[in-house]
Amino acid sequence: MSKQNSSGAISIAPFRYALAVEYVGAAYRGWQLQAHDKVPTIQAEVERALSVVANHPVQVVCAGRTDAGVNASHQVIHFDSWAERDERAWVLGTNCHLPDDISIKWATVVPGCFHARFSARERRYRYLIYTSPSRPAVLAGGVTWTHRTLNTERMQEAAEHLLGEHDFTSYRAVGCQARSPVREIRKLSVYQSGRLVVIDVSANAFLHHMVRNIAGVLMAVGAGDRSPDWALEVLQARDRRQGGVTAPPDGLYFVDVRYPDIFRLPPSDPGPYFLS
Amino acid sequence: MSKQNSSGAISIAPFRYALAVEYVGAAYRGWQLQAHDKVPTIQAEVERALSVVANHPVQVVCAGRTDAGVNASHQVIHFDSWAERDERAWVLGTNCHLPDDISIKWATVVPGCFHARFSARERRYRYLIYTSPSRPAVLAGGVTWTHRTLNTERMQEAAEHLLGEHDFTSYRAVGCQARSPVREIRKLSVYQSGRLVVIDVSANAFLHHMVRNIAGVLMAVGAGDRSPDWALEVLQARDRRQGGVTAPPDGLYFVDVRYPDIFRLPPSDPGPYFLS
Repeated sequence: MSKQNSSGAISIAPFRYALAVEYVGAAYRGWQLQAHDKVPTIQAEVERALSVVANHPVQVVCAGRTDAGVNASHQVIHFDSWAERDERAWVLGTNCHLPDDISIKWATVVPGCFHARFSARERRYRYLIYTSPSRPAVLAGGVTWTHRTLNTERMQEAAEHLLGEHDFTSYRAVGCQARSPVREIRKLSVYQSGRLVVIDVSANAFLHHMVRNIAGVLMAVGAGDRSPDWALEVLQARDRRQGGVTAPPDGLYFVDVRYPDIFRLPPSDPGPYFLS
Repeated sequence: MSKQNSSGAISIAPFRYALAVEYVGAAYRGWQLQAHDKVPTIQAEVERALSVVANHPVQVVCAGRTDAGVNASHQVIHFDSWAERDERAWVLGTNCHLPDDISIKWATVVPGCFHARFSARERRYRYLIYTSPSRPAVLAGGVTWTHRTLNTERMQEAAEHLLGEHDFTSYRAVGCQARSPVREIRKLSVYQSGRLVVIDVSANAFLHHMVRNIAGVLMAVGAGDRSPDWALEVLQARDRRQGGVTAPPDGLYFVDVRYPDIFRLPPSDPGPYFLS
């Protein structure tokens, strides 16, 4: 970030900060700022609040843009600023200017070479499925509800087929703009926690709708509509039309992003905090 | 419930139903219907929805009235009706007419002698405290936030003083209208679950603000402001002015109510469902 002063000299913002952000996506049209200012986005709220604390307009870059309705317990962002503030001031000050469903968890100064998106080496998502004959009231909008019983062993068996580096064309949105459909899934585990079925997935990076499309396939397998091998058949088809439904955004949480140790960022909670 | 027909004969509603209700209290001025119809209450929403399904005006009785902002994972209610519907119809039908933050969990026919309040033998509450330097975004309004570290061993030590039958005058609201201040606490445990500190309390019944006043004392002890013995000193003073602050309603969940086995009600989840 740079600005021109009255004598025409260009000055570069001297500080780069990284922050972790937790949010509930239900009330927003996703992370990314929209052309129309009236569309509520998380980025717009965060930039507005940071700009008050910084006392100049702030633009942020995030680790991974989340869609409408998707939540995060650990989204990481960076921004450049002329303001020298301690970490406490960025966290508590910014939180005073944010709505209840968005909160800054920590802030830290980072080198100018740190980039929230391009420096990231691994991302992790969790997908929470509430299994019950009746819909949830608590955390409504923060879990995906199914009245069906899901067999997590079958889901785990299906999940194994997706581990490793693959062409995930069948699992990405038709409109996905990533140049390559190849991603490496490093961990994909499915387990029960009371009435919740949890899908935990780590990859170097994710394609658009990739986690929700995986969740859609795993839910169909867990409910018994499809066999566990179907996850592999879908993968091998390299055709989105062979895939399952895109599971709703409600149960999706962006829970972690890993950077090289050299940046010494604070660790994430396992997230979301009520499931630890 | 009774009604008079056109020939003047009085007919008694032939069916008594019991239902379990889950709700988030944040948007409501408590359970109980208010004189002013414009005050949002959970009872008003539930009665409105049940009346649609029953096709006649329904009045409900609950196991325990909750205050403004207090949540429930397992509130039990009963009502009388002329409508013969199966359990599924009451649950799914009513949920269609309820807002997202209220949900019926189950419904069952009960004998006319069942009374949601008077038949109850034990109630259970959970109080959830989110401990973190920064406020929560996920479940904001559904947990009580403290930036202080709480020592759960000290809290448990304080809690032991309150077990058994006591005069809880110091732990009830000044305006509490119960005739006797004596209640029997059967279980009171405090434990950590990730960033949450959970207070689990069972009693034959509770006084007004009793759980929140206990939570206020335990939080002061856990934060190191008071010694564990202070819980006993407050109890023995029999004076509300000697007590601590009333902890906020946000973290409070009504999670269970027990009835004699003869009524064969479905069991509760441990509740709220994300903490099992």
